[in-house]
Parts: sequence; C-alpha cells; structure tokens
Amino acid sequence: MPAPLPPPKLGEPYLLTPGPLTTSFGVKEAMLKDWGSWDDDFRALTREIRAGILDLIGPGAEAYDCVPIQGSGSYCVEAMLGTFVPKDGKVLVLANGAYGLRAAQTMTYLNRAHTLIDKGDYLPPRGDDVAHALAEDPAITHVLAIHCETSSGILNPIDEIAEATHAAGRKLLIDSMSAFGGVPMDLATLRYTAMVSSANKCIEGVPGFGFVIARTSELEAAKGNCHSLSLDVEAQWSTMSKTGQWRFTPPTHVVAAFREALRAHAQEGGVEGRAARYSNNRDALVTGMRALGFETLLDDRWLSPIIVTFFCPADPAFQFSQFYDLMKSKGFIIYPGKLTVVDSFRIGCIGQMDAHVMNLVVEAARDALSDMGVVSAAPPAIALNERKKLAAL
Amino acid sequence: MPAPLPPPKLGEPYLLTPGPLTTSFGVKEAMLKDWGSWDDDFRALTREIRAGILDLIGPGAEAYDCVPIQGSGSYCVEAMLGTFVPKDGKVLVLANGAYGLRAAQTMTYLNRAHTLIDKGDYLPPRGDDVAHALAEDPAITHVLAIHCETSSGILNPIDEIAEATHAAGRKLLIDSMSAFGGVPMDLATLRYTAMVSSANKCIEGVPGFGFVIARTSELEAAKGNCHSLSLDVEAQWSTMSKTGQWRFTPPTHVVAAFREALRAHAQEGGVEGRAARYSNNRDALVTGMRALGFETLLDDRWLSPIIVTFFCPADPAFQFSQFYDLMKSKGFIIYPGKLTVVDSFRIGCIGQMDAHVMNLVVEAARDALSDMGVVSAAPPAIALNERKKLAAL
Ligand SMILES: Cc1ncc(COP(=O)(O)O)c(C=O)c1O
Ligand SMILES: Cc1ncc(COP(=O)(O)O)c(C=O)c1O
Repeated sequence: MPAPLPPPKLGEPYLLTPGPLTTSFGVKEAMLKDWGSWDDDFRALTREIRAGILDLIGPGAEAYDCVPIQGSGSYCVEAMLGTFVPKDGKVLVLANGAYGLRAAQTMTYLNRAHTLIDKGDYLPPRGDDVAHALAEDPAITHVLAIHCETSSGILNPIDEIAEATHAAGRKLLIDSMSAFGGVPMDLATLRYTAMVSSANKCIEGVPGFGFVIARTSELEAAKGNCHSLSLDVEAQWSTMSKTGQWRFTPPTHVVAAFREALRAHAQEGGVEGRAARYSNNRDALVTGMRALGFETLLDDRWLSPIIVTFFCPADPAFQFSQFYDLMKSKGFIIYPGKLTVVDSFRIGCIGQMDAHVMNLVVEAARDALSDMGVVSAAPPAIALNERKKLAAL
Repeated sequence: MPAPLPPPKLGEPYLLTPGPLTTSFGVKEAMLKDWGSWDDDFRALTREIRAGILDLIGPGAEAYDCVPIQGSGSYCVEAMLGTFVPKDGKVLVLANGAYGLRAAQTMTYLNRAHTLIDKGDYLPPRGDDVAHALAEDPAITHVLAIHCETSSGILNPIDEIAEATHAAGRKLLIDSMSAFGGVPMDLATLRYTAMVSSANKCIEGVPGFGFVIARTSELEAAKGNCHSLSLDVEAQWSTMSKTGQWRFTPPTHVVAAFREALRAHAQEGGVEGRAARYSNNRDALVTGMRALGFETLLDDRWLSPIIVTFFCPADPAFQFSQFYDLMKSKGFIIYPGKLTVVDSFRIGCIGQMDAHVMNLVVEAARDALSDMGVVSAAPPAIALNERKKLAAL
C-alpha cells in the first residue's frame, strides 16, 4: 500500500475535474523561480521535458519527436490539424461528444475538407464505422480520433480505429488530451502520424501549454501547411531543433512545474503506475456511488479511469447547482455533465488523489443527498433507455 | 524614496530581459493554489483581471472590452489581426524591427492583403510615412503599429501614427506588448480599434496569456472573420460575456499570479507610477553604461523605458557570449541584440528592479569588461554611422 497522498496544502478544494486538476504542492512550488527563456538553463529544461514526454510513448519513439505548443489543449488539436493535414487533404472526424465536435468545428475554421461521423453524446465510433467510411470516400487522407472523450468519460476503441485506418492506408491523428500518460497506448498498434495532449491532465502539471508528438518524417513534410503562424507545429519544431528555444515566449513557470510533474510520474512507475492509481480511483468512486444508488452512463467496459458520468437522480429534491455547492463546501469541486438528452454530472479520477480521497468524495455525496432531502439517487427512466443503446452495440 | 525592492528570493539571477522578467515573490506565491476553471471563484478572478486591465486605459474605457487569450504575445497579435481585419481587408504594417516583421509574416499566413513599410532595424515609421501610404492606397483598411519595438528598444511615435491613421479614416491596431502598463497611452489621441499586450511585460506577471483590448462595437462586428478557432477573439469574448468562462482551459495559476501583479501595479501608482520607476531604471542604466564608455543605439529622444540597445565594444577582447556568461555569473541575465549591421546587446529596464539594481548591473558590466581585458567600451565606426541615420530624421 502506498502512503496516502497529502491533501491540498493551502486548503483549497480537491478538483474532481479533468484538468485543471489537483496537483502536488511540489509541482506548484517549482513555479517560485523566474527563468530567462533565452538562457541555457531554460533550454536544458525544454530539452528535458521533450525527452521525458517521448520516453512515455515506449518502443518506436525514435521515429517521433515532441513539440510543445503554448496555449491550451484545443490549440494543440488545431495546431495538429493545421500542420499535418495538407491544404488539399480531407479528414474523417470521429465524434461522440464535445471534443470530437470541436475538432470538426476547427476543420471548418481551417476551411479544409472533412467529413464527420457523429455518434451522438457518447456511443463509440467503432473500427467498422471507420473502415466503411474510408472505403466509401477515397479522398479522405486522415482520421481524427478522440482517445478518451472527456465529455462523457468514454474510452474510445482507439486500437480498432487505428487498425481500420492503417488497413485503409490512411493516417491517424489522435486527441489523447485527457488520457495520455494515464492510459497505456501501444505505438506498434496505433502507428499514429501525430497525437496531442496537454500539461494539465494525466502528467499532473498545471495548465499553460500542450504538446504534439509526431513522426519526424511527417514533421519534415509539413512545412508550409499551417494556416497559423502561432500554431505551426513544423515551424516550432524546426526552430526548437535548431536553437533549443521556443519560437515565442514560453510559459516558463508552467514548464518548470511540468518537469517536476514528469519526475513524479516516473517515480510512480510511469504510465503503468499512474494507470493503476487512476483505475483504483475510478473503481472506488464507481463502487461507492453505485452503493448510494447512483448509476453511471456507461457499462464498465467503456468506463475510462479519467472521468465518470453519473446520471442525476430523478428525485425532484435533487438540484445539480445545490449538489455542486454542497460538494464544494465539503471540499470537492465536481463537473456538470454534457449529455443532451438527460441530466448528468461528472467526477474526475485524475490528479493528486487516491482511493482514500475517492471514498471521501462518496461520503460527501451521501451527505449532500441527505442535506438536500433526496431519498433515492436512482436516475429517471429515460436514462435507462440511454444505457440500453450502448448495451445493444 | 521608496524602499529598495527585495532581490529574487531563491537566488536566481535578475532577468534584464523584456519578458519573461523578474517578478515579485508574491506574484509567484499566488500560483501555489489549484483553481477549478469552471468554478465561480475562478470566474470572479477572470472578471477582476479583465476589469483591472480596462482600468488602465483611462477615460473612454467604457467603449472597450478586454479579452484575455491563452498563449504568448505573438498569439495575441495573430488573434487581433485575424479577428479585426475582415477577409477582404488590407493592412498597412509598420515595421522597424523583428516584431513588425513578424506581424507582416502573420498576415502572409492569414493569406490576407497587406503592405509593408519596412524602416529597417530601428528607424521609426513617422506620421508622414503613414499619411503618404494611406493616401496612395485606398484599399488599406487597417494600420498595424508596434508601440515599443522591443528588438531595438525604440519607442515608436504612436501618437503621430494614430493621427495620420485617423485623419485618413482608417483603423488602428497596436502591438503594445512591451509598453502597455509602463508607458502612458492616451486613448483620446490613439483611438485604436484594438491593441494587445501580455501578462509578463509591464504588469509584471508570469507568461502564459495575453490580452486584447478592443472597441466593443468592433468585437460585435468581427464575428466570422477569424481564421482560427483558438485565436478567435470575438468567440472568446462572446463566450466570456455570456458565461464568465474562458472557452478553453485557462492557465489558472498564471491568471492568479496576474491578479497579484495587477494589485502591485495599482499600489505603485498605476501606469504613471510604473513609468516613473522604469524611466529611473533606464536613466540609471544609460548614465552608468555611458560612463563606462558604452554607447546606445538610440538618441535619448527615442529611448524607451523598456529596454535599451547598446553597441558591442569594438575592442577585440569583447566577446558577447563571454560577456553574457560573466554577467550571468554576477547575477544578471541580459539579452543579445537584434541589429543586422552591427553587433549589439540589450538590457531591459522592466520587472522587479529599481535604480539601485540598475547601478549593480552597471558595476557588473564594468567588472565583466575588466575580466575580459577590454580596454575601451567604444563601439566601432560603423555603429556611429547608424546613429547618424537617426539624427538625420
Ligand atoms: C479530449 C479533449 N480534447 C480537447 C480538450 C481541450 O483542452 P483545453 O480545454 O485545454 O483546450 C480537452 C479538455 O479537457 C479534452 O479532454
Ligand atoms: C513588441 C512585441 N510584440 C510581440 C512580442 C511577442 O511576444 P511573445 O514572445 O510573448 O510571443 C514581443 C515579445 O517580446 C514584443 O516585445
């Protein structure tokens, strides 16, 4: 049994949200120094975090490079699409939630061809869907997949999608924002052209930048593609390769915090170690919440160790905003749901928390229900209809 | 006499660089807590910093709004150009250094019409240049001006440029990255459509986001212009206006640090107070360096209180890289120059430093010269030719 993780030192609530999340005090303390972005010490720091990220992708990494990008995760998705999809390319966007739809919206901004498979609020795009769409439309050059669709918490069948993409001779782009570093990804199966994630998810850094991991050969070929100077991954990469510097001012403190976060990640046993803790967190949470009568949107098979969607109880005494406030007053910040047909909320499993904390979350939820006078946490009938759709797959 | 500012608490060198810069320990300590970006507390923080920034622009602010944008300053410049210049607009870019040229490069990425007045390494674009160019080309809709061109340290004649732009009925966009908050700007004279700056310049926050200040009427009119989802200022503004939230994950810790920085800015007497300290810093630096025999690129009239370019001494014993290392070992990180025709270096005047610190910088420079065996700090003849160009204006 590892020692329990210490609670937030300054007494702020736990963030049960899928990033920003609760980070260790050591990660935040790493921000107490100023760094010159042109200086050798900072270049060494940049080198170290790029190498540290590449270390996480495992065997085959030597064909890839890591390019950090200032801004939020969505910037990295846009940067990846703008840089790796040529102006005459066409993208098959696989959507089953907000982040897939945002990728499609990004393609519209870029004014580049794309086609959308929209599975609605959460139903997973399957390998067969992809194979079929690619067979139908030879103009498609790239497939964009969301790894963990954070808006429902589903872990999409990325291996199936990768196989279908590869079999059809197309290129795969992955948004693994919320999963990378916390869910094992096998490069030999995935064979992606590029993937993105960000500092403030499973690596447990603070927000301010993200990163693209891309095949070096694809980086080399991408010159001149991008619609944006700021988001040009190839330009960032070639400057960084030459000078060791970011093209524009980096979020120096956030980068220093990230190094600390990477060290802790390695110390915990890398991706495997972190996946184990997060899975434990999820199991403690789901078991406890189900015991209170809550139901999850997804069957166990599809539950990610990142974030879990629960249906709101049908009991009219349950009000999400009141539940949110009560949970916050008990020390836990949770997240509203994103389902369109039925009310829901989400609780994250990532960040500096362990099963002990998740048990406290469940206790707080129990107390909040009783504060509100909710008698049963069972969801409305319409929610159970949703669950049947997934079971039918 | 104000009390001397405390030195960097963790012993790191002073950053004599125009951002990232040396911030107070209190600003960095504000990053020791985690924030949920969806939570009310963070929305209040966002509201507070937006209002705080608008407070700095003075009378007339009620016609403007402030839109923070994740990423570096260059992202904000791109966001401003992409959002406020319609797809059929045309921009006159005024360049006298790296940042003006970067704005022109951004227009090329955007694939929108622009024309460039390039005055070379530092010579200022004048009101007459602008009036002439606008009279010649009625297709020009916007003028993009750099306030302090940080690559030489020149304070461009922004009032003249604004007058000429207004007289010709065109719209003004200003990159005031390195000057805003440290150099007074009169809104009644400037009448800009939009301007940008960033967290880690004269407000003395840490890097991670910047902000656009724009006329509300122009924000309203800008819907659908932008080439980028991430950099769409109108979309960020309308979401923030409706929900109080950033569209995508904000750099929460950096934003919290910025609030602390804004408080210290107000306490120092706002823009006037800060301008006074920075001007003192510059005067102490320039007087001291000139006494050592160094010469500035610019006449006093053009020297900004932000950063100063000095010519490298002609003495063959002077090597910039050695000078850099010696200065660093004495506790000061300086900046290389960006002039193309003659070697130079730059020393910044902004950040948590006062005239006392600037005197120490001068002492360190004196000692570094003697460590290197440099006999005279006088520049080569070619440098003096450069100075004559400016005097001829
Ligand atoms: C799968 C996925 N994609 C994209 C994003 C967008 O990231 P950001 O909010 O940092 O822009 C997120 C954020 O949670 C995400 O989970
Ligand atoms: C005038 C000016 N514009 C643009 C920038 C670019 O800012 P960033 O490096 O944050 O992208 C700078 C940076 O110093 C600047 O001084």
